[in-house]
Amino acid sequence: MGFSMVASHAVGKGKEPDAVFAVLNKANIAKAALGQEKVINASIGAIFDEKEQFAAFKGVSDYFRKLPDEELMNYAPISGLPDYLQAAIDYTFGQYKPKDAFIKAIATPGGTGAIRNVFYNYIEQGQKALIPDWFWGPYKTIANEHLRDIDTYTMFDEDNNFTLSSVKEKTLELLKMQDNLLTVYNTPGHNPTGNSLKYEEWEEILDFYKDCAKNKNKKIILLLDIAYIDYVSNPDEGRKFMKLFSGLPENILITIAFSMSKSFLFYGIRCGAIIGVSSSSEVAEEFAQANSYSARGVWSNGVRGAQKLLVDVMKNKELKESIDKERTQLSELILNRADIFVKEAKEVGLDILPYQGGFFISVPAKDPTAIADKLMEDNIYIVPLKKGLRFAICALPTHKIPGLAAKTKEALR
Amino acid sequence: MGFSMVASHAVGKGKEPDAVFAVLNKANIAKAALGQEKVINASIGAIFDEKEQFAAFKGVSDYFRKLPDEELMNYAPISGLPDYLQAAIDYTFGQYKPKDAFIKAIATPGGTGAIRNVFYNYIEQGQKALIPDWFWGPYKTIANEHLRDIDTYTMFDEDNNFTLSSVKEKTLELLKMQDNLLTVYNTPGHNPTGNSLKYEEWEEILDFYKDCAKNKNKKIILLLDIAYIDYVSNPDEGRKFMKLFSGLPENILITIAFSMSKSFLFYGIRCGAIIGVSSSSEVAEEFAQANSYSARGVWSNGVRGAQKLLVDVMKNKELKESIDKERTQLSELILNRADIFVKEAKEVGLDILPYQGGFFISVPAKDPTAIADKLMEDNIYIVPLKKGLRFAICALPTHKIPGLAAKTKEALR
Repeated sequence: MGFSMVASHAVGKGKEPDAVFAVLNKANIAKAALGQEKVINASIGAIFDEKEQFAAFKGVSDYFRKLPDEELMNYAPISGLPDYLQAAIDYTFGQYKPKDAFIKAIATPGGTGAIRNVFYNYIEQGQKALIPDWFWGPYKTIANEHLRDIDTYTMFDEDNNFTLSSVKEKTLELLKMQDNLLTVYNTPGHNPTGNSLKYEEWEEILDFYKDCAKNKNKKIILLLDIAYIDYVSNPDEGRKFMKLFSGLPENILITIAFSMSKSFLFYGIRCGAIIGVSSSSEVAEEFAQANSYSARGVWSNGVRGAQKLLVDVMKNKELKESIDKERTQLSELILNRADIFVKEAKEVGLDILPYQGGFFISVPAKDPTAIADKLMEDNIYIVPLKKGLRFAICALPTHKIPGLAAKTKEALR
Repeated sequence: MGFSMVASHAVGKGKEPDAVFAVLNKANIAKAALGQEKVINASIGAIFDEKEQFAAFKGVSDYFRKLPDEELMNYAPISGLPDYLQAAIDYTFGQYKPKDAFIKAIATPGGTGAIRNVFYNYIEQGQKALIPDWFWGPYKTIANEHLRDIDTYTMFDEDNNFTLSSVKEKTLELLKMQDNLLTVYNTPGHNPTGNSLKYEEWEEILDFYKDCAKNKNKKIILLLDIAYIDYVSNPDEGRKFMKLFSGLPENILITIAFSMSKSFLFYGIRCGAIIGVSSSSEVAEEFAQANSYSARGVWSNGVRGAQKLLVDVMKNKELKESIDKERTQLSELILNRADIFVKEAKEVGLDILPYQGGFFISVPAKDPTAIADKLMEDNIYIVPLKKGLRFAICALPTHKIPGLAAKTKEALR
């Protein structure tokens, strides 16, 4: 340990490179050396089309580029353009806006900023957020950056069914140690597995939390990361569970990380919102104030042009329908790519986790880094996780998918 | 105090609306009721042209809108495009890059994100950052959001000279209580006064810190907020002091908040970087790692399109010169507006703080909120600060400036 200038809590942080971007880097080097056709880059969570070109929605791109200078470049209010906040709420819930609830939103830089605000504002320093054992790595980074930690529940049983029993067990365990309980649900189209919670599972989850909430000292916070909500076979139906957030006890707060990154292919524009749902107007108001203060104290305002685009899309039926159509086509393309992988996995006897939508498919593995390295020798670039391998099916043109399951099965031997 | 769901440190935060945006709101309401010509809106720190339209650089706007989809919308790496980091460094230092130093940069959402990272990573929870008594309000918000605080030094003596003696006194006081010392310098073109530190002042400041740094237990961190660096009469000359950051002791770290908000009129696009300068390669490396981790754990990556634009501007001489020319014209316009106010203030005997550049002029006042309210009756909208009134001269077309000093003098009576 050499000379250090940072504060004590920041010593040694950031020594490990980001897992996803590290693999992406290697894939790009291979691509430059061997040519794109020889490399299977299934590392990054962005959609590439059948020619392996970056995919954008023409309707979004054209409209964004034509915004007036002031809408594109002037400051947005700290909390976000008021119309944007409403648009984000409308877009998120679709037909399933909870009726008996106060709903507030505050603009954030993408989903990450939204998640940061909930982790920071709703659990105490030193406490743990509960997340599944198959998880997007940055949840842990976000927790650790803010001197919080994570605990994990077992996501699947031996038959690959979602194990609500593990959520319950871990929740009761954590509630013995801390009054604030934050649980993350990344659904529909969970990253990295593609799992979507069923409506009936949501009913059971909420019944369970209502039971927990009978102890009024407990503050139960759910964080829904819905980044992939539009990439399932029926995005409208996939929102149905949200109507269940109606009339909850006042010590249950639902928070939702809305992001334009995937739904508008606006990853690098950084526009999202944190949405709060509470049966208490006081709790909803506190939510808006705390998150607005965090915005001012962390990143200031959001990206105005993206906010304005969403406002206009939600007001302009024709524009919305044309973008929706592009999104549906792309979503079908990804679901089709996934189908091929799933089918071949079955044929070659490769054990994969249940995929219902989203950008990724996961394969359980005992030594993920070693397997990832092995696949790299075959010019296949995927992200090794704690418990397996993540395939970014979104990034692979269809013709590169056949054979991938077999090669993975081979590497696992 | 009603029912609350937030963690203990977040209780009650955000109850006060943001001062600047609150005044702006009122100004906009007045504008809608009375018409633009009747309202003097000197609240927001964005440039409006002589027709009181939002000012953008044509060269910037045109180029940004024509970026390929992938450059505009795909993810940037967490730390920023490597070429962007180099471009931000090159742009910041101009001809005055410190020679005997390691320089690193990490992308941030505007200057705010850069400031956040230094406040969070370089002083301990509970410690204080030292800022001037005339200060941009969010410094305090940023500190408080992260459970840190501020202390202030007296910026000007009775003759309106910068009082380095107060910086020294406060520094020695703080060093008795904490090992990490973070001092913010917002210069050239200080917000809210327009003050710029002279080269000789910088020499004296650095000599003082070198003395402090003889105690090797102390970690001395300077944070330069250079948001307004291009809006002084000679932006090149205004950078000269930066060459003094060469060969400093390893326990002095210079950090610089680079922002495209003002220099490229990209306020609402949110693109900046935190730059670190150290004589120790280890300290520079730690700086990059800690800030990169913070990016991943707070907002993820930055706005790629803005990063790409800066890369291309710095590589394309013609494009750079055309944008530089637009910037010089706009800067001259603002300096000219300020000249009118300064001259009239002298004529009517209005005491103002020394303005050398930037977007704002400040007037000391005993009860700033009452005076601001009084001016509002005259449809003049300015931001009341702790010690006076802030006039956003950048936002007022030249023809609205004559008479403003007299009206302010009148309100102060």
